Amino acid sequence: MSKLDEERVEHIVQTILQDYEGERAVNKMDLYNQPDKKAIIDIVEKLLKILYPGYYSDKVYKIYSVKNNMAAAIEDVIFHLNKQVMIVLRYCCTSSDLSDSALEEKAQNMTFDFMEKIPQIREYLETDIQAAYDGDPAAGSKDEVILSYPGLYAISVYRIAHELFLLGVPMIPRIMTEHAHSITGIDIHPGASIGKHFFMDHGTGIVIGETTVIGEHVKVYQGVTLGGLSTKGGQKLKGIKRHPTIGDRVTIYSGSSILGGDTVIEEDVVVGGNTFVTKSIAKGTRVSVKKQELQLK
Amino acid sequence: MSKLDEERVEHIVQTILQDYEGERAVNKMDLYNQPDKKAIIDIVEKLLKILYPGYYSDKVYKIYSVKNNMAAAIEDVIFHLNKQVMIVLRYCCTSSDLSDSALEEKAQNMTFDFMEKIPQIREYLETDIQAAYDGDPAAGSKDEVILSYPGLYAISVYRIAHELFLLGVPMIPRIMTEHAHSITGIDIHPGASIGKHFFMDHGTGIVIGETTVIGEHVKVYQGVTLGGLSTKGGQKLKGIKRHPTIGDRVTIYSGSSILGGDTVIEEDVVVGGNTFVTKSIAKGTRVSVKKQELQLK
Amino acid sequence: MSKLDEERVEHIVQTILQDYEGERAVNKMDLYNQPDKKAIIDIVEKLLKILYPGYYSDKVYKIYSVKNNMAAAIEDVIFHLNKQVMIVLRYCCTSSDLSDSALEEKAQNMTFDFMEKIPQIREYLETDIQAAYDGDPAAGSKDEVILSYPGLYAISVYRIAHELFLLGVPMIPRIMTEHAHSITGIDIHPGASIGKHFFMDHGTGIVIGETTVIGEHVKVYQGVTLGGLSTKGGQKLKGIKRHPTIGDRVTIYSGSSILGGDTVIEEDVVVGGNTFVTKSIAKGTRVSVKKQELQLK
Repeated sequence: MSKLDEERVEHIVQTILQDYEGERAVNKMDLYNQPDKKAIIDIVEKLLKILYPGYYSDKVYKIYSVKNNMAAAIEDVIFHLNKQVMIVLRYCCTSSDLSDSALEEKAQNMTFDFMEKIPQIREYLETDIQAAYDGDPAAGSKDEVILSYPGLYAISVYRIAHELFLLGVPMIPRIMTEHAHSITGIDIHPGASIGKHFFMDHGTGIVIGETTVIGEHVKVYQGVTLGGLSTKGGQKLKGIKRHPTIGDRVTIYSGSSILGGDTVIEEDVVVGGNTFVTKSIAKGTRVSVKKQELQLK
Repeated sequence: MSKLDEERVEHIVQTILQDYEGERAVNKMDLYNQPDKKAIIDIVEKLLKILYPGYYSDKVYKIYSVKNNMAAAIEDVIFHLNKQVMIVLRYCCTSSDLSDSALEEKAQNMTFDFMEKIPQIREYLETDIQAAYDGDPAAGSKDEVILSYPGLYAISVYRIAHELFLLGVPMIPRIMTEHAHSITGIDIHPGASIGKHFFMDHGTGIVIGETTVIGEHVKVYQGVTLGGLSTKGGQKLKGIKRHPTIGDRVTIYSGSSILGGDTVIEEDVVVGGNTFVTKSIAKGTRVSVKKQELQLK
Repeated sequence: MSKLDEERVEHIVQTILQDYEGERAVNKMDLYNQPDKKAIIDIVEKLLKILYPGYYSDKVYKIYSVKNNMAAAIEDVIFHLNKQVMIVLRYCCTSSDLSDSALEEKAQNMTFDFMEKIPQIREYLETDIQAAYDGDPAAGSKDEVILSYPGLYAISVYRIAHELFLLGVPMIPRIMTEHAHSITGIDIHPGASIGKHFFMDHGTGIVIGETTVIGEHVKVYQGVTLGGLSTKGGQKLKGIKRHPTIGDRVTIYSGSSILGGDTVIEEDVVVGGNTFVTKSIAKGTRVSVKKQELQLK
């Protein structure tokens, strides 16, 4: 290959460096104080190993005692999570009026409070695994569910992120669920509230908005949106309930959209595929699209 | 950062370790005998290099003979696949009554039988590449199809997994297709049967269920579900044909759902976008949604 | 594990090696001259660091001057991009009549011309970040948008790939956008033309075809297809405008399909969820599906 034209390279470098000047969002350069996306994803993967100590454990643990290694893994997560929580607390303007030692204490408490939730998260996940196995005729075993079902991966990461969200940790929960979104195509906002025995089959394209509330034993299929009716209000809508409420034992088949903060799908409703629901549905109803008229040519 | 409160760390570690006791699915800790997800994904990537010896080959092979290196790669896959097949056979309860040497022989035969299918898999993939190039005006060349089309990636991994599924290998086929699902958003169950010249354009959100049967020269677009009508029966439906049959030269446009084990889409049918089909469609028919009534405000 | 049956291994190896003979697309083995997918993805990741110097920078830069390191990163991208452009130019038949030195010059000019576009790409991305923050009540901050929104990732990679596409670089742009497709579930062809302030919420399942033209301040939700009406023509349709034109300030809600090269959605139109549009819509209209009739049982 030819030697690159050095002058033009130099000119390009200078032009881009100049472009970094100024107050734009694309220009932030304070590297030291930013949350580290890779470190956060690493924490997620380590937490999954703690939640499922058999399935996700590194095979390198083989020659030592499993328990000792899990203990080390737990301490490791505490250390790194505490570090990232500290960084996001410092980074996010609202906390900047706290002293450094107050911030440190706050970060540590958030981290500890979260870690103490792990047995409860595992209790929920046990019910999610059962729901997947019971709900899918194609499931060969619970092991297959844990090792290969994207829906279980997404709900596992959501259950982690949701606890951090409830504790008021900024940014980290969303980075976690967006990582799961990238892996699975399932987009659950960490703010959503989801009961036990939750099963998402196939999963790709599922969207569950920030203020959604979901009961127990709910089944949701691919391409389902639990979303807002309009986002015209933008940032003015922040904090308002704008996503639906789903009762216990509801099933929502693929491609359906249920929209709006006042929309309540009551217990035991079955929502057929490809429906578009913006009003509440009473207990026990079976809703489906009136037979679609098809044109034959 | 402050020194972490050691007592609280120790308390958290002990609480989680205690939570591992008991017989729950989340608690399995027999690391030694589990299938290794990373190893299986690694086998998939190596098999892709064998299927497409030019495109996927490591550039490190550069200085040696390509043929020698492919030979080494093939032996390597045989070794690692055999190992994982052995593990899943031992792991899955149904085979546990076999002696160790009988298991070893069974694993080895499955591995060899699979490897002997590779020329046939490659014959099918050649037709899939042709179908993608012929079917997509945006395809610049067949090389572009091989190097960048997610549909080709998904069908390649499916064709590998399907042969393993037919040989009765447990768990591994599903882990493979779920890996492809994660990469491409295309979810094909390894049990589905798919003819030559299969083309999926864009692909995201495609779901093809376990008992689907697809003919030759079929085209499927993003967001298409070939699925079951209801999964209320759960595990009781295992083994029953619950997904549709698609004839030769059928095209199914984006967002359509075709559901049910008795639903047969006969040869040369064109299914328009966003349709919801639960009944059979006769040969040569062109089906589309009756003009959707739109409200203008 | 038992020793593998050597004869059968040898037979399998020979059978596969023999299968490599012949002129099929699956058989290409000229490793040296092919574009390197991993290298191209690596260039994308490096370009993202240059576009967002704070957010994506490696923490290893910590101890040196940020500016010096960015300068080094820019030079590095120029070197590697130039190399890959050279390879694809040599590889793609249409350029093969150029001499080696002419090819080298062409590759270098394409690389330089692209790099000079970076300030303009960053100007566009600044508006995309603003649009995401303004448009999503769940957005906690612009930092959260940059660090976690898949829509921003997809538009960033598209804006890189589009400039390379305009310069006539073959294959590389598509490999880049398919990488983003894999990460985000958003499939934007590098040939599409997209104005400033573009926002895709959730994003999974969005498909934007090669000849789509999109104005400024457009919002698009998950599962939206901007596609062609029929692809029956296959390669014969190459180059013809077959995807829609979308005016300024149009919003398109989830699951909608807008199809056809003559379909023009004029300024300030709102397209409701799950609509199927194949005709033009006049300025300022609000289009939605007539209330869907639902069957209750």
